[in-house]
Amino acid sequence: MDRDTNPQNESSKSLNSAIKDLLRDYNDLNSSTIDELPTEPSPLEFHRYVAQNRPFVIRNAAKSFSAYDRWSASYLTKTLANSPVCVAVTPLGNADAPLRQENGDIWLVKPHETTLPFNEAFDLIRDGTGKNTVYLQSQDGNLKDEYAALAEDVPPDIPWARVALGRGPDAVNVWIGNERSKTALHKDPYENVYVQVRGAKRFTLLPPVAVAGVGERLLKGARYVPKQDATEGLGVEEVGLEARLDGDGASVPFPTWDPDGVTEVGEEGGLRELCRPVRVRLGEGDMLYLPALWFHQVEQECGNEEFCCAVNYWYDMEYSGSFYALAVFARNVANAAIGGTMGENEQ
Amino acid sequence: MDRDTNPQNESSKSLNSAIKDLLRDYNDLNSSTIDELPTEPSPLEFHRYVAQNRPFVIRNAAKSFSAYDRWSASYLTKTLANSPVCVAVTPLGNADAPLRQENGDIWLVKPHETTLPFNEAFDLIRDGTGKNTVYLQSQDGNLKDEYAALAEDVPPDIPWARVALGRGPDAVNVWIGNERSKTALHKDPYENVYVQVRGAKRFTLLPPVAVAGVGERLLKGARYVPKQDATEGLGVEEVGLEARLDGDGASVPFPTWDPDGVTEVGEEGGLRELCRPVRVRLGEGDMLYLPALWFHQVEQECGNEEFCCAVNYWYDMEYSGSFYALAVFARNVANAAIGGTMGENEQ
Repeated sequence: MDRDTNPQNESSKSLNSAIKDLLRDYNDLNSSTIDELPTEPSPLEFHRYVAQNRPFVIRNAAKSFSAYDRWSASYLTKTLANSPVCVAVTPLGNADAPLRQENGDIWLVKPHETTLPFNEAFDLIRDGTGKNTVYLQSQDGNLKDEYAALAEDVPPDIPWARVALGRGPDAVNVWIGNERSKTALHKDPYENVYVQVRGAKRFTLLPPVAVAGVGERLLKGARYVPKQDATEGLGVEEVGLEARLDGDGASVPFPTWDPDGVTEVGEEGGLRELCRPVRVRLGEGDMLYLPALWFHQVEQECGNEEFCCAVNYWYDMEYSGSFYALAVFARNVANAAIGGTMGENEQ
Repeated sequence: MDRDTNPQNESSKSLNSAIKDLLRDYNDLNSSTIDELPTEPSPLEFHRYVAQNRPFVIRNAAKSFSAYDRWSASYLTKTLANSPVCVAVTPLGNADAPLRQENGDIWLVKPHETTLPFNEAFDLIRDGTGKNTVYLQSQDGNLKDEYAALAEDVPPDIPWARVALGRGPDAVNVWIGNERSKTALHKDPYENVYVQVRGAKRFTLLPPVAVAGVGERLLKGARYVPKQDATEGLGVEEVGLEARLDGDGASVPFPTWDPDGVTEVGEEGGLRELCRPVRVRLGEGDMLYLPALWFHQVEQECGNEEFCCAVNYWYDMEYSGSFYALAVFARNVANAAIGGTMGENEQ
């Protein structure tokens, strides 16, 4: 069949153009910079941001948290001492990240996880010279559990978020790492209030409508595991790690775009030029509202004491109404338009 | 080309299935009945409905309006007397409605408009036996203008809506008619608080995601005008009217589905079964929040004094954020999926 008159090409073109119009409309109607609020919002003011699904930052808002004054290296060492914590270990600082294999397949690789006494893990993070990268990122409401000794240092929830959303947080998490960890582009179905306590985080954000540009693919699940012949007598920071496919053979859809990787701009059918990342750097005491379903990639910088530390509050997103159903629709149409590759690994 | 392997068919099928999934998701996540609030909401409670783009009704909420006590036929007659008002006249009670022509084309026909003293127009509405239907529906913020004498009988805005949305109403309109007027399915880019004062209104509502099912077509604009040989000596209620195309030849996209027309269910590529109309009847003193971009068809019933009367508050919708851009996208994709007929009249 003549390519130029292939009706599927025509149809894809028209879809491609609908998706480009979506991005153009979004760009026309929204700023590509983040709003900075002078003070914490009222519940209603916050709800306007939730309704628009738009992020904001409040500088210094968390300076009133006890954590801001207290969380020095020595305080954390004394408070958490040798209590066991879950440790994520990766060769490249790449926990839960797409990893291209030699044959071209891309796997979604989870970190090697082990348990260490806090002080031992914290020393590895602050030292930062091991072959592997260590990150405390157990994301399961760990402030109630592993880090309960720190719970009194931060508020149990964010009052304006609780009132606006009519619910408490689903999870409050502590994150402790160093600048070798980088979080790959992904999204969460949560309204997220992110509080930087030590060091800094650099967020690269993309709205849910950018789904056509993020290179979502069905990736086979994998996990880093210690190589069998290289584990003897080595600490987690030095052990040889290799990615191994999960036994269940399950695949999950996941973005493969690195929005800071300059060489990739211009792919995904020309859509990427229309995806305008919003960038924000959170310093110590800054607070970010990261709306549900926003794609985010995160890098971090250590503070004076060679670690970075943050707390985040996850509130369940609202599934009723139009927004969630429309966001899923945009994703389905985008994946149908971009050559229907969602069912397979990228070739 | 073999129909079964026609790639455009395949592509349309996949789009059609994305649209059906959108409607299924929406139906799964949302009720097909309307919420009834026991009392007026707080601004934050209202904003949650705005954010979800979901309607609600509050029974008896407008019984506190002076209008509810005052707006008898004799009060309106005395208060507005012979002040001139804009009158919409149609042969079928069909102002701003699609009208199928003998050749199959569908035109969007505006009413014949003229100016009459209020009392004369009001008598024609209450009498209701003329050949034509008369409706006072000037929709341009007429409470400030033609009906300024009634303005003190209703609040200048709805306090919880003003606070929630951070703005006053863009327009407050008075509507006076009888049960012969029916408003065709359409949508408005406004958050709408609708207050029934006399008689009743029956709304049939469809959310913005139902756009694929409403049979939107590009309709040529037309208007009813008196037939040249039939105007002599006749009042507006008896004059012969015929639809005539607008001189500018412009077309506008407009729904052609009558969701209460049983015979049409099942068209639009099988999507219509998934479009679940939400029905609500507003009685005297009831208040409806009709969210922006919801399709609505309206019929009315006269009260004891043979007229119905309502007031509505239109607040500008929020265009920033994701919702508006996604709603436009859903519409564009829906129209591309349903055979690409948006550029032409239905054949």
